[in-house]
Amino acid sequence: MSFSQHLEAVVAQVDGAVAASVMGFDGITVETHPPMPDTGDVELASAWIEYANVLTQLKNAAETLRTGDVTEVSVNSARLVSIMRMVTPEYFVVLSLKPDGNLGKGRYVLRLAESKLKAEF
Amino acid sequence: MSFSQHLEAVVAQVDGAVAASVMGFDGITVETHPPMPDTGDVELASAWIEYANVLTQLKNAAETLRTGDVTEVSVNSARLVSIMRMVTPEYFVVLSLKPDGNLGKGRYVLRLAESKLKAEF
Repeated sequence: MSFSQHLEAVVAQVDGAVAASVMGFDGITVETHPPMPDTGDVELASAWIEYANVLTQLKNAAETLRTGDVTEVSVNSARLVSIMRMVTPEYFVVLSLKPDGNLGKGRYVLRLAESKLKAEF
Repeated sequence: MSFSQHLEAVVAQVDGAVAASVMGFDGITVETHPPMPDTGDVELASAWIEYANVLTQLKNAAETLRTGDVTEVSVNSARLVSIMRMVTPEYFVVLSLKPDGNLGKGRYVLRLAESKLKAEF
């Protein structure tokens, strides 16, 4: 399966899912599903870049803080909820939901997707 | 009830809870329970300062990104899981758990604590 098919499966399984993407920690997306998500006036692409930046910071700080590797970060805001999960040292997968979307299911589905995506790298 | 009593109630209700704190976005703690948490060699106080910094970034970016106000952020790492919830524009509450702690219960209890803490400011 391609990245795109895995991402499509993630989005299809989670109520309220807006879009999912495989991204580098540099904020550059490898693949997104759907390719042109309908996000109202939420600046989804820019939000993901900001989150990639935050993940990089947390990842870099983890050694000093002795917290062990960062595995997952979620950011809930009034109009968008995003879950990021590390896939490789260079890439992560992000799933964004509407605020009333199923966060628990999203976390679960993303955890399963992580190992499938890892196999594609 | 004091901050300390609210934090104590949070920690007592969540399996695997390590410590909870009311903090400013500048990274300075107002109150922590327990006052001297046993965190093994995890640098908890430094981790919270790093997270406060990340929260500030996300909070400041939210307007540009049109995501609405940030309400909650969680950071899962191999040896520590932390949930941060905004209380006022200047302060947030953080709960840290062992990695096998009850994250769902933690989120729930922190949401309830948020309104009680808000009333104390």
